[in-house]
Amino acid sequence: MLALLIDGAMPADASLAVAVNDRGLQYGDGLFETARLTGGRVRFLAAHLQRLADGCERLGFAAPDRATLTTEIDTVISGHDEGVVKIVVTRGVGGRGYRPARDVIPTRIVALYPSPAVGDDVGIRVRWCETRLGRNARLAGLKHLNRLEQILAQAEWDDPTIEEGLMLDTEGELVCATAGNLFLVRDGELITHDLRYCGVRGVMREHVLGQARSLGIAAREAPLWPADLEQAAEVFITNAVRGLRHVVQLDDRRWARGPVCESLRRTLS
Amino acid sequence: MLALLIDGAMPADASLAVAVNDRGLQYGDGLFETARLTGGRVRFLAAHLQRLADGCERLGFAAPDRATLTTEIDTVISGHDEGVVKIVVTRGVGGRGYRPARDVIPTRIVALYPSPAVGDDVGIRVRWCETRLGRNARLAGLKHLNRLEQILAQAEWDDPTIEEGLMLDTEGELVCATAGNLFLVRDGELITHDLRYCGVRGVMREHVLGQARSLGIAAREAPLWPADLEQAAEVFITNAVRGLRHVVQLDDRRWARGPVCESLRRTLS
Repeated sequence: MLALLIDGAMPADASLAVAVNDRGLQYGDGLFETARLTGGRVRFLAAHLQRLADGCERLGFAAPDRATLTTEIDTVISGHDEGVVKIVVTRGVGGRGYRPARDVIPTRIVALYPSPAVGDDVGIRVRWCETRLGRNARLAGLKHLNRLEQILAQAEWDDPTIEEGLMLDTEGELVCATAGNLFLVRDGELITHDLRYCGVRGVMREHVLGQARSLGIAAREAPLWPADLEQAAEVFITNAVRGLRHVVQLDDRRWARGPVCESLRRTLS
Repeated sequence: MLALLIDGAMPADASLAVAVNDRGLQYGDGLFETARLTGGRVRFLAAHLQRLADGCERLGFAAPDRATLTTEIDTVISGHDEGVVKIVVTRGVGGRGYRPARDVIPTRIVALYPSPAVGDDVGIRVRWCETRLGRNARLAGLKHLNRLEQILAQAEWDDPTIEEGLMLDTEGELVCATAGNLFLVRDGELITHDLRYCGVRGVMREHVLGQARSLGIAAREAPLWPADLEQAAEVFITNAVRGLRHVVQLDDRRWARGPVCESLRRTLS
């Protein structure tokens, strides 16, 4: 970790800095954002903060003040040009028991991590995950702290040449990658899963959908199934930190780099 | 909190005592147990420790040493006769990203809380929860730290005369209460949900199933539906801290205290 603030203060000991009774630790009762710091600026900061605020509202607690969070982000990125800003907001420190007290003050953790090694845009290999995503419309789309499904999915492989895993939900719909949204191009149309029951509504996903419309590319959110992948001309995965990565291989199926993904990627640079 | 050990040590400041990068906080990547301390002894301690070890295995990390945990429990309960022992075990402190590193050492948090106010056994009123349980066979039965569904469910009501909420899964099966397992008695037979896709395999649930067999009461784990409740002669909820509580009312449906629940409850005292 490169820098850290908890509730706006630099902890004396960063390795012991969160309350045992924080509901984030006790129950995963909170949300997070991971944003890319590049050229000294946090990319899509407004969209990240808006998603965080929306998530707090859906979980039923008051979002931290936006100006306060922005100041804390400015502090942790100060002196750095590149990195990953991670914001964790939990419901706060509460007693034992699931029921949230009404007077809890959300905990804010703002940290800067080094940038991941992002390879050249030569495309990535992906695999199927056995771990399924449970359905829950009340949590669908949220980047919440209940992430055991993604952890079990990523633990399924350790071949470093495979960068991502594709996840089905319990009904067999093809929803997303373990840490990114999935886009297909078929007959010139861009399609991504509608996330009505599970999955994270990624900031980069929203950006790509918006950019597609600006570029005159038909774009649609819809249920997807594994068979849809077979018929796709292009496949790519989006993530706020890693951007757009086109998929070149899944088992024996291969895809070339395609024009839709390229057009969309150019809008990022 | 009455007493606390983290990785065997008493933190200098209990309010700031867990690492920010602990995977329990970052992703809910861990498990917990809540056991009842009564008469100076932890009830069903062996069963709690066994479930914890089984859970670690299913999540793919080495369970903390049992003798170490037992010693830490002895330390936190020292000088106390009554209370709730809560054990949280997380995968440990890891880097950013879902993928668990292989060399992580699990974090152990052992804490003693005051006993909840447990009323006389006059029965409890319950309600239906709107929040559903997502299905995921890989997580079913585990008392893991991903508890947003239970939190949202308990946040649905604040009428203090209603003690529990009944939860359906996304397919409409009647699985459990927000913090306990549900038992029905029909034609003299005891039935509880089989938890094949979701729900927590409660320590008290297992005890009750075993006791029923000892008492010659037919007992079965099976899928349950709301309609099964209508036809039940007795309904009760189990929880390791609160024991067996018989349900007296759900909406307009009322139940009397019944002989099966009474026989089972007597085995606890």
